[in-house]
Amino acid sequence: MFDLVALDADDTLWHNEPLYRTARDRFCALLGDGFAPDLIDERLYETERRNLEHFGYGVKGFVLSLIETGLDLTGGRLAGDDIRKIIDWGREMLASPVELLDCAREAVEALASEFPLILVTKGDLFHQESKLARSGLGHLFRGVEIVTEKDADVYRRVMARYSVVPEHFVMVGNSLRSDVLPVLEAGAHAVHVPYDISWVHERVAPEALADLHFHEVAHIRELAPLLHRLAREA
Amino acid sequence: MFDLVALDADDTLWHNEPLYRTARDRFCALLGDGFAPDLIDERLYETERRNLEHFGYGVKGFVLSLIETGLDLTGGRLAGDDIRKIIDWGREMLASPVELLDCAREAVEALASEFPLILVTKGDLFHQESKLARSGLGHLFRGVEIVTEKDADVYRRVMARYSVVPEHFVMVGNSLRSDVLPVLEAGAHAVHVPYDISWVHERVAPEALADLHFHEVAHIRELAPLLHRLAREA
Repeated sequence: MFDLVALDADDTLWHNEPLYRTARDRFCALLGDGFAPDLIDERLYETERRNLEHFGYGVKGFVLSLIETGLDLTGGRLAGDDIRKIIDWGREMLASPVELLDCAREAVEALASEFPLILVTKGDLFHQESKLARSGLGHLFRGVEIVTEKDADVYRRVMARYSVVPEHFVMVGNSLRSDVLPVLEAGAHAVHVPYDISWVHERVAPEALADLHFHEVAHIRELAPLLHRLAREA
Repeated sequence: MFDLVALDADDTLWHNEPLYRTARDRFCALLGDGFAPDLIDERLYETERRNLEHFGYGVKGFVLSLIETGLDLTGGRLAGDDIRKIIDWGREMLASPVELLDCAREAVEALASEFPLILVTKGDLFHQESKLARSGLGHLFRGVEIVTEKDADVYRRVMARYSVVPEHFVMVGNSLRSDVLPVLEAGAHAVHVPYDISWVHERVAPEALADLHFHEVAHIRELAPLLHRLAREA
């Protein structure tokens, strides 16, 4: 039934969002008590959202958004040393070890023994390639597609590239907005594997999910058994 | 003879380096007369080279390197407004119109009528995709490979992906370091099309070219005739 199984990476195979949360906490601490964390979050997200069309996803754009938000909130009075610190956090985020989710390696190995796998991840090409290399999982994937946005057209192009029809393609990931909705729109299958925390940008209103059919597993280790069962039932 | 012709993009099909030069000139003006342009260039390149392993190629990393260099040179006393300006330059660079080189469109159309073409470019995925879309040349390419580095292994992977042997693959670009040397190392053909100016990082010592066999044309409009002739002679 599945000619190709596609996996998301950030917060599906390895932890990612916590790095952004840590940077955000440091940013709040840097700005000090004069600014409520909620206000900082709101302004930061406004800046990030505005910058997405220019910078795309990833750490470098996030760092630039942190600097801009800091300058906005302080009326331009962010010290040079503080700006240096923010850039240092960015380098730390980019260099930080790839921490696989619990049982992710075993789950991907089990999948790879049964299905051709690809990785489909958005964000920064340089950083994502580096994380995949450091994850030690690279050899389990037949292909890696690093894309700038995950919409239905991008999934259609990925399927065309691998000569797979939507009925035989399944995408697995933690983001309803990126890994589930556009995949269903393209006529393919999707499995949602929720992660503890999510970036506000990736959230989806419950109404958007009404009448949609997709699968959900609580943990990635349940994925191979689910796909095995679906393939057998088909 | 050529089953696949690969073209570089920045400064091969469209102007790119002038945008960096303009930003560098603005940066010198921003820092003022207290700093010699040569010193600024030297420090900026040091910072860029150090950051390459963290940030990779592209405008966002360049902007972060400008900010760091500015903080270094001024002992951390760069005003908030100046930092904002530098980030604005980055957004401008990313949004600036794609200016094709003289006759580039005609040259690519002529090539596309005779050979399967792909684009192989390094840098930021988001920005390169956006530039290709805005160039109006996208439909002439059978594939687009945006890579983090152009070394022999990357070219080998590209050839494998398109099932082409090195003897039947040719790469065309303005950078001896990125578009010629690693291609020859991978056993394939290369055509150098020099561009007026080059980033110091892309330069190659003349000794490195000794005993190497590659082609050079002065202008991209000479490319289709050259490849046509080579294909006929083979």
